[in-house]
Amino acid sequence: MTTTASNTTAPTRLLRVENATYAYRRFGGGAGLPLLCLQHFMGTLDNWDPAVTDPLASGREVILFDNAGIGKSTGEVPTTVAGMAAHALAFLDGLGSARCDVLGFSLGGMVAQQMAQDRPAIFRRMILVGTAPRGGEDIMHLHKASLARHLADPSLDGYARLAKLFFTSGPSSQAAGQAFVGRLARRKEDLDPVSGQAVAAAQIAAFREWEQFSGEPFVDLRSIEQPALVVHGVHDEMIPISNSYRLVENLPNAVLLAYPDSGHGSLFQFHESFTRQASAFLASDSPFAPY
Amino acid sequence: MTTTASNTTAPTRLLRVENATYAYRRFGGGAGLPLLCLQHFMGTLDNWDPAVTDPLASGREVILFDNAGIGKSTGEVPTTVAGMAAHALAFLDGLGSARCDVLGFSLGGMVAQQMAQDRPAIFRRMILVGTAPRGGEDIMHLHKASLARHLADPSLDGYARLAKLFFTSGPSSQAAGQAFVGRLARRKEDLDPVSGQAVAAAQIAAFREWEQFSGEPFVDLRSIEQPALVVHGVHDEMIPISNSYRLVENLPNAVLLAYPDSGHGSLFQFHESFTRQASAFLASDSPFAPY
Repeated sequence: MTTTASNTTAPTRLLRVENATYAYRRFGGGAGLPLLCLQHFMGTLDNWDPAVTDPLASGREVILFDNAGIGKSTGEVPTTVAGMAAHALAFLDGLGSARCDVLGFSLGGMVAQQMAQDRPAIFRRMILVGTAPRGGEDIMHLHKASLARHLADPSLDGYARLAKLFFTSGPSSQAAGQAFVGRLARRKEDLDPVSGQAVAAAQIAAFREWEQFSGEPFVDLRSIEQPALVVHGVHDEMIPISNSYRLVENLPNAVLLAYPDSGHGSLFQFHESFTRQASAFLASDSPFAPY
Repeated sequence: MTTTASNTTAPTRLLRVENATYAYRRFGGGAGLPLLCLQHFMGTLDNWDPAVTDPLASGREVILFDNAGIGKSTGEVPTTVAGMAAHALAFLDGLGSARCDVLGFSLGGMVAQQMAQDRPAIFRRMILVGTAPRGGEDIMHLHKASLARHLADPSLDGYARLAKLFFTSGPSSQAAGQAFVGRLARRKEDLDPVSGQAVAAAQIAAFREWEQFSGEPFVDLRSIEQPALVVHGVHDEMIPISNSYRLVENLPNAVLLAYPDSGHGSLFQFHESFTRQASAFLASDSPFAPY
């Protein structure tokens, strides 16, 4: 059985484990460990930009994953990041994957951090984009004006709204947003169901829980010793870049790459740079994050 | 006349202009524009790590510069960054260099920012390492405990003190510091005079003036439109990384690369990564900073 090495054409697969069925796609190959991709708020397999996934799939297998209750995966959407991490680990166990690399974007980056703490050997190298540590600030507060104006705008459909939310208002970033949604729209068949309000409510609950901490903030990050590449757009309104500052100040082995003129979707806006940097980072076998 | 493409062996040259003589070294070559290197507090030509300058010199000519009153350059050390910028521009005029790239480290990064504002066409691309914008915070406050303990330690000579000041206290960073001072010590002849207390006093005055601002802070950065690569060590005690956060949040076209487990000398600690990243950044002709 072969797959096409693109998220535009890779078939959606189902993995049955004891209590659940997980939807996923896998494509590409090469010398590297598989790269597990963990998705953002309300995102499905169809929200992975092929301009990001496909170049990465030229050096390794890329595995896209729908957590419980998302897309064609069964079950309830967990209301905690820890619950989502448990599902992702069960999925990897079901695949027989004992060690991989990870790209966690936004909510997915929180899930990746939790997985690394729950099972330290699972990841070799971690890429954390547009995300926040436990105890981070201003995580997905959708009622604030800068976000609510797009969410409440009845003239925006799903993809047009994404271009407003993930990109800045500047002309260059908005043009990149249009190109991004055009790339997502290339996939015409075998689509995931779009996430609805029940998904949103559960994931928002998980964000609120993730903002809580007890004791000294960010000390839990010191136990994540994997080399990490942390990426953020400087004008991200959904999860501010200050959260990535706290990540690299407290993770013992993390490089920060911050992009100008960009918001939450910095990896999609600067996909050529991002995939070049991510590929160089993943290709390194150094115990140190700098690459 | 030939030069060896290393700061270990390149001869010190003198350029006479109307009112001053400037000491400099130039070596290497390639397709790129020349790279002007602007030095840190009290640093001379001999403080440029060959592990940083020499790989960069394989793609372009590298030009190291002693500002007025430093090393074998004549004149008084200016007490403002603006005064230093005027000297650096006079030096480039004397060389006949109308356009170049720049690597400004620490104080040198402040001089580079001032030059870009005084003469916007002078730089094509800018690399700013361990530096701060005008109005930045906690710039070289040598009396604070984390710095004073090394500056007041009579057991440390010049290079040993540098290894303490530029690197963190961790074993990996300290080992990198020892390697760094070993590389500096390879140059045995044609050395610059070491900077003394008069240099320190004037440059400290320039730091205090640079911390001042009137009006809204950091708006002056918006006029620096060159692609910029901003680099900082997350545990820099001499000029904290918060200053680079402000740089990339306000410069319109700047990427931030932050290194873990490192202090003011992050570029020397991770010289392999830094020169790879800097070379890729300088090799780009994109109007956008991401590379």
